[in-house]
Amino acid sequence: MKSFIPIPYGSDFPIQNCPYGVFSTKTNPRRRIGVAIGECILDLSAIAHLFDGPALKSHQDVFKQETLNDFMALPQSAWLEARSTIQKLLSDNVTTLKENLDLRKKSIVNQKDATMHLPAAIGDYTDFYSSIHHATNVGIMFRGKENALMPNWKWLPVGYHGRASSVVPSGTPIRRPQGQVKPEGASDPSYGPSKLLDFELEMAFFVGGPGTELGQPIPIEKTEEHIFGVVLMNDWSARDIQAWEYVPLGPFLGKSFGTTISPWVVSIEALRPFMVSNPKQDPAPLDYLAHSDPFTLDIDLEVTIKPEGGSDHTVCKTNFKHMYWTMKQQLAHHTVNGCNVKPGDLMGSGTVSGPEEGAYGSMLELSWRGTKTVAVGNQTRKFLQDGDEVNLVGVCEKDGVRIGFGDCRGKVLPAL
Amino acid sequence: MKSFIPIPYGSDFPIQNCPYGVFSTKTNPRRRIGVAIGECILDLSAIAHLFDGPALKSHQDVFKQETLNDFMALPQSAWLEARSTIQKLLSDNVTTLKENLDLRKKSIVNQKDATMHLPAAIGDYTDFYSSIHHATNVGIMFRGKENALMPNWKWLPVGYHGRASSVVPSGTPIRRPQGQVKPEGASDPSYGPSKLLDFELEMAFFVGGPGTELGQPIPIEKTEEHIFGVVLMNDWSARDIQAWEYVPLGPFLGKSFGTTISPWVVSIEALRPFMVSNPKQDPAPLDYLAHSDPFTLDIDLEVTIKPEGGSDHTVCKTNFKHMYWTMKQQLAHHTVNGCNVKPGDLMGSGTVSGPEEGAYGSMLELSWRGTKTVAVGNQTRKFLQDGDEVNLVGVCEKDGVRIGFGDCRGKVLPAL
Repeated sequence: MKSFIPIPYGSDFPIQNCPYGVFSTKTNPRRRIGVAIGECILDLSAIAHLFDGPALKSHQDVFKQETLNDFMALPQSAWLEARSTIQKLLSDNVTTLKENLDLRKKSIVNQKDATMHLPAAIGDYTDFYSSIHHATNVGIMFRGKENALMPNWKWLPVGYHGRASSVVPSGTPIRRPQGQVKPEGASDPSYGPSKLLDFELEMAFFVGGPGTELGQPIPIEKTEEHIFGVVLMNDWSARDIQAWEYVPLGPFLGKSFGTTISPWVVSIEALRPFMVSNPKQDPAPLDYLAHSDPFTLDIDLEVTIKPEGGSDHTVCKTNFKHMYWTMKQQLAHHTVNGCNVKPGDLMGSGTVSGPEEGAYGSMLELSWRGTKTVAVGNQTRKFLQDGDEVNLVGVCEKDGVRIGFGDCRGKVLPAL
Repeated sequence: MKSFIPIPYGSDFPIQNCPYGVFSTKTNPRRRIGVAIGECILDLSAIAHLFDGPALKSHQDVFKQETLNDFMALPQSAWLEARSTIQKLLSDNVTTLKENLDLRKKSIVNQKDATMHLPAAIGDYTDFYSSIHHATNVGIMFRGKENALMPNWKWLPVGYHGRASSVVPSGTPIRRPQGQVKPEGASDPSYGPSKLLDFELEMAFFVGGPGTELGQPIPIEKTEEHIFGVVLMNDWSARDIQAWEYVPLGPFLGKSFGTTISPWVVSIEALRPFMVSNPKQDPAPLDYLAHSDPFTLDIDLEVTIKPEGGSDHTVCKTNFKHMYWTMKQQLAHHTVNGCNVKPGDLMGSGTVSGPEEGAYGSMLELSWRGTKTVAVGNQTRKFLQDGDEVNLVGVCEKDGVRIGFGDCRGKVLPAL
C-alpha cells in the first residue's frame, strides 16, 4: 500500500496508520476532522461526500463535526469502512482524489500550518494502574517489599476516576501547581508550589460505539466494539501534593492540574498487526475478565526531557506490551457494575514501566523517590524543573511498516 | 411576596424558592428550562422574551436551551436578574403574566404532567467527604477509634473525582450492581451481586459562571461567583465492592453504578436567608481556605425508605449545617492547583451525618456496619433490599417561609 502523498523516511504517519484528529488553520479557524498522512492532513470535512459505503452513506455529517464524538459513536463497521475509504482515496493507484487537483487543494493541508485540538469532547476520563512493574515499584517505595502489591491488584484492574476538564492536547504548557503539602518531618502542612513535579508515561484509549445504558455491562467479548483508538498520555503528577491528599479517597489535586494527550487517535485497526500474546496472569482472572485473544500491543515507548533552551534527551525507554491488564479487561471491569460509557470517554493505562531500571515511566521511579539523579543531557534531574519540556514517543514497527503516535509534548511553566 | 399561582400548604416551591430545572411533557417532548412554583412549572422557554434587563436582554437564548449550562455560564449578576424577573412575573401584584391568559396557557405547566431530566450536562462530578461525623464514624469502623480521622482530614476538604455519566435524575431506578467482592474470611474474591447496597445522603452544588482557565485558581473570595445552586444527592454505594477495590486509588465501581440528584436546582440566593455561622475549624485553615462570612446552610435533611408495596419510612434525620468544610472551601481547594472548572460541574458534599445516632446519612453507619438492625416501618434492614425506594428530603424554614428541594427518589432493581 502506497500513498500519492509523499511519506518521508521515519514518518509516524504512513498510509497504514491514518490516525484521526481535530485541527484548525489560520486561514480557516473552524475545527474540523482530519487524518494525518506524511506531513499533511487530509481534511475529512472537505471530502465527506466520498464516504458513500453502506455504513457511512447516511452518516457523512459525522465528518463535518468539530469533534470525533459523533464518528466514534457509530458502530465498529463504520470505523472499518471509513478506514478503507480513506486508504483508497490516499492510494497511489486510485485517481478519485489523486487526480482531482481542485479537491486536493481543498482537502489537503500541511501539518505545519495546522493547530491540533482535543480529538473529542471527553465525557469521563478514567485512569487505570495496570503496569505490574510500576505498581510494584511504587509499592516498594511507600510500603516496603513485602507489601508492594495490594491484595486486589492481581485480581482486578485497579483504576480511578480522573478529571476530564484538564485533559489538554500536546503543546499546551502546564503550570506548576500550588497546593497543600506536608514535607517529611514537618508538624503541619504548608501551602506552596509543588517541588516534586513528575510526568507519567501512559497510553489511553478512546471509547467508541453507541453509548451504553446505565445498568448494562459490556461483556468482555463485546469490548472491542467499544475501543475506538489509542493515544499517548502524560498524566502529570505532583508527588508531594498527592502524598498528603490521597488517603483514603485516591489521587485528586496531585493530578488534576493537567493531563496531556497526543492529538492523533490511532485506530485499533492500524494497531492490529502489532498485537502480541497477552501476559500470563496468575491467578487466572475471574470469568468476566477472561479472554484469550491477543490484545496486548507491542509499542516501543520513550520519554524525553528538553531543558529550557536545550534539546530532547531520552530518560526512559520501555514498551506497552509490559502491561498486565489488557484494554479489554479494563473496559469489562469498568462496566461490570452497570456503569455506562459514552463515545469520547478516555481510559488511561496507568504508568507504563518495564521490568528494568531505564524502563520506568516516571521520575518517581527513575530517581527512586529522589534518592538518585537522572541524566538529562549534561544536566541532572530528580524531578521536573520549570522550563523542562517533556515529550512522549510511541512507535510500532513490523515487516517494514512503521506507525507512530506523533508528539505528546508539554512544557512546565513556573508556578503563579 | 405572594404569587398568583396557588401554593399549597407545605409546598417545597413558594415564590421565595423558584428553583430551576429541565422538563418535558407528553404533548411537547422537547426538553426545556422551567422554574417550579407551587404544583406548576413556569416554562422559561415560552417567556424568554420577558428577560429584558441589562444582564439578560442579549442572552435570552439561554432560556431556550435543553440544559441549564448556558444560563449557568452567565455571571452571577445575570442569575440575580433572572431571579428577580421571575419573581416579578409570578407575583400577585404584577399583571404582565397574571393577566395575559394566552401567555399563561403557553408557559404554565402542571408538574404532574412533566417528566424531569438532568438540569445540566455534567462535565465533571467531584465528591467531597466533608462531614466530620461521617468521616469519624467510617474511620472508627475501619481503622479503630485512635486512627478514625486521617491526618489530612482537618487540613483540607478531602475529595475525589466521581463518574459523571451515571448521575441520573430522581425517579430513575438503580440496578443492584454486580462485581468483585472478597467476603471476610474468603481466600479468593468472587463475582456476584453486591450484598451491601447502601445510600449516602448528600447535597451537591452546580458550578456556574464562565468556565475558568487551566492554571487559574479561584481565590476563596471569588468562589461564590461560581456556586450556582444546590440539589439533593444520593451517592448510592456498594460497600462490599468498595471495600475490596478502593485501596490505594479510592472508590470506583462501588459508586459508579448510579448517583441520583433532585432535578430542581435551588439557587444560592433562595438559600441565603438560611445561612448560619460556619463551624469552628481547629486547626485554623491555611489562608487559601480561610473565609469568615457565613456559608453554612441550615437545611433539615431526612432519608426515607419505602419497601416494595409499602410507604416511606424515615430512617435518618439530620441537618446540612453539621458539615465541617463549606462549599466555598471545597471550590477554593479544588482549584488551588489550577484545575479548571466549567458551568455544569457537580460537586457533592460527602455523606451528611449529624453527631447523634439517628442522624447518620448511610445504612453503613445506621446499622453500624451491619451489627444492628434499622427499623423501616414494621420491617428491618441492615442494608438495602431489592424493591426498596429511597428518598431524600431537604427543607429550610424561617420566618414563616419554607423552601424545599423536591424529591430525590430511586428504587433498587434486582441484579441482572
